[in-house]
Amino acid sequence: MNAKNAISVAIITLLSVAQGLAQKLNSDSLTKPNSEIMTIVMTQPKVPIKTIGILVYDGYNTLDAMGPYHTLAEIRGAKTFFVAKQKGMVKNQRGMEMKVDKSFDDVKQLDILVIPGGAVETFMQTQDTVTLNWIKDIDKTTHYTTSVCTGSWILGATGLLKGKNATSNWYRAAEMMAMYGANFKKERWVKDGKYWTSAGVTAGMDMSLAIIDDMMGRKYTEGVMLDLEYDPKPPYQAGIPEKSDPIVADMMKKMYDMVMLPLIEKEKKNRQSKKKNLVFAQ
Amino acid sequence: MNAKNAISVAIITLLSVAQGLAQKLNSDSLTKPNSEIMTIVMTQPKVPIKTIGILVYDGYNTLDAMGPYHTLAEIRGAKTFFVAKQKGMVKNQRGMEMKVDKSFDDVKQLDILVIPGGAVETFMQTQDTVTLNWIKDIDKTTHYTTSVCTGSWILGATGLLKGKNATSNWYRAAEMMAMYGANFKKERWVKDGKYWTSAGVTAGMDMSLAIIDDMMGRKYTEGVMLDLEYDPKPPYQAGIPEKSDPIVADMMKKMYDMVMLPLIEKEKKNRQSKKKNLVFAQ
Repeated sequence: MNAKNAISVAIITLLSVAQGLAQKLNSDSLTKPNSEIMTIVMTQPKVPIKTIGILVYDGYNTLDAMGPYHTLAEIRGAKTFFVAKQKGMVKNQRGMEMKVDKSFDDVKQLDILVIPGGAVETFMQTQDTVTLNWIKDIDKTTHYTTSVCTGSWILGATGLLKGKNATSNWYRAAEMMAMYGANFKKERWVKDGKYWTSAGVTAGMDMSLAIIDDMMGRKYTEGVMLDLEYDPKPPYQAGIPEKSDPIVADMMKKMYDMVMLPLIEKEKKNRQSKKKNLVFAQ
Repeated sequence: MNAKNAISVAIITLLSVAQGLAQKLNSDSLTKPNSEIMTIVMTQPKVPIKTIGILVYDGYNTLDAMGPYHTLAEIRGAKTFFVAKQKGMVKNQRGMEMKVDKSFDDVKQLDILVIPGGAVETFMQTQDTVTLNWIKDIDKTTHYTTSVCTGSWILGATGLLKGKNATSNWYRAAEMMAMYGANFKKERWVKDGKYWTSAGVTAGMDMSLAIIDDMMGRKYTEGVMLDLEYDPKPPYQAGIPEKSDPIVADMMKKMYDMVMLPLIEKEKKNRQSKKKNLVFAQ
């Protein structure tokens, strides 16, 4: 491959808008980016990233998965795909069906693993030993093991966050991270070695950009941010309990409690009785 | 339906995490939000919103569609769904396949229409009279007709943005909006009557939150923001050309040009010759 072609390939890979088309065009007739500039912006990643897998399961939260999927897929030279326990249709939390081509059996290695969250179905994953074991096996092969939102509960349930700094969705975050033996940090995203965890839903995009920045540096990251036109303008300074109207924050917590608290309390009791049994056995 | 049930239904509808589960729980045993507080937060929408349709087509940009989908689906009492020319599998710009249950023929009315963008395939939609006519028909029934990113090109091509304030993805935004007879406004999102248009990709989320705010007010919007944990922390002040490293902004524009400019130039010429023919005919 000559230098001109190499640049074209780099362009095609970075630019999601270009996929499948650029090769059809007669690029000689067009304004092309200067190859020197390309070299400055198109840094090589710190570690070779070839495979990025987003774990999905019925009930995953749409943007927990789609934010990192869209963002991380901008890493050139890597394949970004979804993986589920079984191949076939997987539903998000609202019933939208997506075709997943790769099962746990198909995926034995990932450079980046992303575990999205959700609600009840996410909690169920924390009880699913097939899922937990697959994550632990994959983790042995990753450069980055990551979770978004309550996806940190699943990652926590594998035991991989024990003694590590981590975060999750704001809902009972300190309590949940403590239950899994992690040191809760109240941040948008938290990095501890190769373990990256993020706060709720949209925080997965900020974490993904931070991972890209970690690997590729500022210029490449700014390129991705332009491709996402990521210059957010939230309608209010809100989005976390501390910045929200206390009435709203309280109501949301109580609404989550209605659904989640019985499951959490039950799990806590299970863990306590296991601990007691262990002490007793000693 | 008594007041207690009405509140429970409202809770279930707002809370994406609760879907399909709350009714299984014995809610009497749980901490419940105070009904007075619920009334304060759970305002009725200004206009009744029952149907929210996201138009998709092969090549749509993932987050252009998924951002508004996830966000607008938090409007209680409304159904949020995808609609395509034909039912069946629709691919995003990277080949992810989603099952779409509603075709143009199935959807004759929408309270909110969302038109996501993309690249070449989006441009192709601007030439597709079946799609443009469906949009024009649906527009007669909407409370909000909206577009995200280059979705504004499709909306522009219907003629519905003529003489209206509008925006689109940063790429050649002023030029593209002018081509469709709209007054380009350099904003994150622009509202002109019932026509709302947003800047690129992630701006669709900000626009969706602004629509929710317009309908439901601040407390409800803050509730949704908590559900999305939307307190963004971009790694850099960037994401639009003016805030980006000039080298990066220039390279990205040139990369887009490689793919899109020949199509845009051709369309401009077509429109000019049509205009000339009209003048000649007079």
